[in-house]
Amino acid sequence: MLQTRELFDSLASRADHLDNQTLATAADALSACELAVTACAVGMLAEKEADELRAAINRDLNCADVACATRRVLTRGTDADHALLAAQLEACVMACEHSHELCAQHAPQHEHCRLCSEATDRAATACREVLRSLG
Amino acid sequence: MLQTRELFDSLASRADHLDNQTLATAADALSACELAVTACAVGMLAEKEADELRAAINRDLNCADVACATRRVLTRGTDADHALLAAQLEACVMACEHSHELCAQHAPQHEHCRLCSEATDRAATACREVLRSLG
Amino acid sequence: MLQTRELFDSLASRADHLDNQTLATAADALSACELAVTACAVGMLAEKEADELRAAINRDLNCADVACATRRVLTRGTDADHALLAAQLEACVMACEHSHELCAQHAPQHEHCRLCSEATDRAATACREVLRSLG
Amino acid sequence: MLQTRELFDSLASRADHLDNQTLATAADALSACELAVTACAVGMLAEKEADELRAAINRDLNCADVACATRRVLTRGTDADHALLAAQLEACVMACEHSHELCAQHAPQHEHCRLCSEATDRAATACREVLRSLG
Repeated sequence: MLQTRELFDSLASRADHLDNQTLATAADALSACELAVTACAVGMLAEKEADELRAAINRDLNCADVACATRRVLTRGTDADHALLAAQLEACVMACEHSHELCAQHAPQHEHCRLCSEATDRAATACREVLRSLG
Repeated sequence: MLQTRELFDSLASRADHLDNQTLATAADALSACELAVTACAVGMLAEKEADELRAAINRDLNCADVACATRRVLTRGTDADHALLAAQLEACVMACEHSHELCAQHAPQHEHCRLCSEATDRAATACREVLRSLG
Repeated sequence: MLQTRELFDSLASRADHLDNQTLATAADALSACELAVTACAVGMLAEKEADELRAAINRDLNCADVACATRRVLTRGTDADHALLAAQLEACVMACEHSHELCAQHAPQHEHCRLCSEATDRAATACREVLRSLG
Repeated sequence: MLQTRELFDSLASRADHLDNQTLATAADALSACELAVTACAVGMLAEKEADELRAAINRDLNCADVACATRRVLTRGTDADHALLAAQLEACVMACEHSHELCAQHAPQHEHCRLCSEATDRAATACREVLRSLG
């Protein structure tokens, strides 16, 4: 969204040399991802085969918490604390991939799994993009 | 965003009678708000007059945490647990208003405060809209 | 814990007149509560009758997020922003009570529900104590 | 605390072979750490030299969010999802170390920094202990 890019541009004092568009895209993708996995977890819990979806629900819950922490660290990035941002992004890529792996299997049956598997995929891609720009 | 509305539509089992567009608008406004107050807090902390901005920084930090919890409770709403959602929305409206009150004063000087004061205003409005639909 | 009380005592600038022991007790009770509901949710999800426990799982997940936000607002209390703290505590008492209501029913069958129902009860009591001292 | 150990013991279905005492110690250390860095951030913000403490405040805020996500992933550990837990613990050790590094320098002047530097040190140690047991 335009507003997120403007927000990163307004933090003029940022000591780092990261591209604001890359950061804004990642922040928005992480917000959408957190929302999607939270909704998908509650959606799977409401399905008749909740027992079979157990692992996928746990992965979604983990992904929501990791995505939230990652988005905040990424947003605060003024500290030029790139090592922490990189470590948190690595964990987040993994959380997104693990969530995606199971929800993609259930995508044909459940619309919330399809939307969730897309959102986690986009978030993982956006995090990898920031990792690449961290060098 | 379109995706958020689709996500709420995919949770077919929702026992409540809330309008999905109202919920989706609020969820997106809360995500944007959490991002804006987190960025604005770090922006104000980097300003020369951080001492004067102290109260505004604390209000932004509180707003981020309250908005995050509110968005999750709102997203999970299958439980028809309207009383909790209403109480959490009331707290969130207040957190947004308190944050808005101080950042609006600093909006002429700081672009991040201007963006933040808009985001908290939109989030408060969206939360009030959900409260109204809860009846 | 002793350390939590010391921590509140170290924030000498607190503008409010709240009793630090009451705040420290609430902060610790909220931490224990967040841990217990998170563990109990995953415990119930692993039970054979996860379908029946669905509502209790959702209540535990909501309680974890609300307790986390409440503990942070309470810890930051320097702003003398009592109205927000009160509103957030009201929502938290409700989240704890709702979680307790269902887990107490499952306490005879599941040890994690017994521990969880105790933790939510203590957290609700501690939040009410802070609310009382807010006057 | 005794209760945390009992809680981990009650999750009988845990598929992993991690020692519950190690996990319980880490969960409690992360709760205490999240509380300490949140309190210390607000304490530093209230100090006259808030400008100089800027970097330390940002590190504390990051540490709070990373510690929270880590404690939740660790608590949910039923999924035998050790790779994610390890990645998140690595990020958390770094967040605790970075926070500790600056607060330890301010410990002689500020009691909240002393308590915070102890809490982040204990949390980093406890996370490393879990990492070691993950093998």
